[in-house]
Amino acid sequence: MTIDDLGEFGLIERIRKLLPDAASSDVLVGIGDDVAVLDPGGDKLWLATCDVQVEGSHFLRDAISPRDLGRKALAINLSDIASAGGSPRFALMSLGLPRGLDVAFVDELYIGLREEASLFGVDIVGGNLSSVRHGLFIDIFLLGEAPKGEVLLRSGARAGDLLLVTGTLGDAAAGVATLLDPSLTTTPEYLQTAKDRRDGPTPRVREGRLIGASGLAHAMIDLSDGLAGDLGHLCEQSRVGARIVARGLPVAKENRELSASARGDEWHFALHGGEDYELLFAVPPSKAQELTETIEHETGTPVSIVGELLPEGSGIELTFPDGRSVPLEERGWDHFEKGQGGRA
Amino acid sequence: MTIDDLGEFGLIERIRKLLPDAASSDVLVGIGDDVAVLDPGGDKLWLATCDVQVEGSHFLRDAISPRDLGRKALAINLSDIASAGGSPRFALMSLGLPRGLDVAFVDELYIGLREEASLFGVDIVGGNLSSVRHGLFIDIFLLGEAPKGEVLLRSGARAGDLLLVTGTLGDAAAGVATLLDPSLTTTPEYLQTAKDRRDGPTPRVREGRLIGASGLAHAMIDLSDGLAGDLGHLCEQSRVGARIVARGLPVAKENRELSASARGDEWHFALHGGEDYELLFAVPPSKAQELTETIEHETGTPVSIVGELLPEGSGIELTFPDGRSVPLEERGWDHFEKGQGGRA
Repeated sequence: MTIDDLGEFGLIERIRKLLPDAASSDVLVGIGDDVAVLDPGGDKLWLATCDVQVEGSHFLRDAISPRDLGRKALAINLSDIASAGGSPRFALMSLGLPRGLDVAFVDELYIGLREEASLFGVDIVGGNLSSVRHGLFIDIFLLGEAPKGEVLLRSGARAGDLLLVTGTLGDAAAGVATLLDPSLTTTPEYLQTAKDRRDGPTPRVREGRLIGASGLAHAMIDLSDGLAGDLGHLCEQSRVGARIVARGLPVAKENRELSASARGDEWHFALHGGEDYELLFAVPPSKAQELTETIEHETGTPVSIVGELLPEGSGIELTFPDGRSVPLEERGWDHFEKGQGGRA
Repeated sequence: MTIDDLGEFGLIERIRKLLPDAASSDVLVGIGDDVAVLDPGGDKLWLATCDVQVEGSHFLRDAISPRDLGRKALAINLSDIASAGGSPRFALMSLGLPRGLDVAFVDELYIGLREEASLFGVDIVGGNLSSVRHGLFIDIFLLGEAPKGEVLLRSGARAGDLLLVTGTLGDAAAGVATLLDPSLTTTPEYLQTAKDRRDGPTPRVREGRLIGASGLAHAMIDLSDGLAGDLGHLCEQSRVGARIVARGLPVAKENRELSASARGDEWHFALHGGEDYELLFAVPPSKAQELTETIEHETGTPVSIVGELLPEGSGIELTFPDGRSVPLEERGWDHFEKGQGGRA
């Protein structure tokens, strides 16, 4: 049996079963959430995460500037810390670089890393360089912190909670689609938006911290694999079902048109596209307006109600604007599953 | 200009200059030591490090079992925490796996990781899986801790200190050499020792903790790139020179014979071979015996005096058993420098 037969999430589940439970009571959350939550004593919890960008799987070297790549490699990790409501603090980075690489590439990559780190108050404190024969990679390890009682996990959501999302969905997926298939057409403005969102995701760090500190939300996850897939993780770990209301999805008209052209489904990019790096969070209905107003007022980032959580066993469904409901296929991005090629 | 022109250490220096000093006063040591040292408050310091094993650069998939590879990938990080005198605590791992990889390989890899983690009291708390087109990699981030006042760095050594080393040197290099050139011959026993030390380094975690806690040593580094290269780092950061006494080097007779056959120099493997993962530490002469006895008594690991530190500007020299002294070439392993091929 190969790892393609298992798929990414099957493989993760297999690895979880192979590893023992954490021996130390300092580990509050181990494998399986966006971040590990550690309690070294004191009034703060530590959050730890790692995520990588691999050439040929996550990016094509010709299609993204090294500066954008540096920013993005850190941004996707910042998004994980944000999803727990934490403040990012310290980064280490492990780079695999092919021999013969132009030094200017490395310079630009680090300028991007430096810009993103500076923007979010992160210190780059260490790292490691290795040569690779093929496939440059940038692997980042990020430590963050949050006051005790303010960390949000994938678990903790309850039936009846509303599902809220920051920003807009599907733009990065449109950016990937237009890169891989230049025959897809849209307005020049939206083409630029889609490219910018693909190469320069905006981690919702301030928004995540506000949501954690507010004490109003029950659970949170960042959207890296597509709303459907990540909602699936949240529902599984919170033991709830969900209904997504298509009318509520924050999706540009141009995005729906591109999605319809490329995938025959105007909601595909928004639901399954991935790389949005927005936050999805569960809030009791009585608190949704207060929290939405706080986030929009403090950060300027729009917040949308995209659905609600249902009792366990309800599954996950999608209600179209015409009132029709269908089961929402949960599958997000899977690195290994057959039929999914390397993502650009 | 390419990264090969700069070499690994030139590139690291260039990156250090590109990055700003840490903005947070919580960063006691940032880029440039074996570990980052962080002070989040409280009575403990946190240590953070990352190191990777890349197929084709660090290992050949046919030449090491996945179980040994898992153990080794963690061991090299444990060695970094040990070199600061710390206790390893939490690991995250980022794996790049080629499609089509047998699930049994992943199982065995994690069994090795689990064994090594368990042996040293480490909890595996998170990670990340990605597909790669070529070149499997295992990148590990390790967090450790040490009481304030007990962390040892590369800096801090003083002229007049003795240089002590745990264990033996050059065995892993002999293991690599006999793998790459099967015509090299030695005794079956030493061939096995060399292979074991290549594929299964023993991180000196207990020894490092004892040395840190003793308060007797001034500086420490782990030997990953070869004694000469790593001593060069220690001397540079401590602003001292050094004399290595060949007669004091803990090197097996078979190792010297193999080194002479393979490299025309019986001391080459011990001085330049790399991957020893022993500890090199600087101790005032009046404390050397006490510390040596403590380590040998508590752990059974032998400790050897291999030289002494000289005033700044003395350079680094090697004294042969016949009394002759030569400047010791400092160069250790360099991932990018021209003329060094991918290491098996």
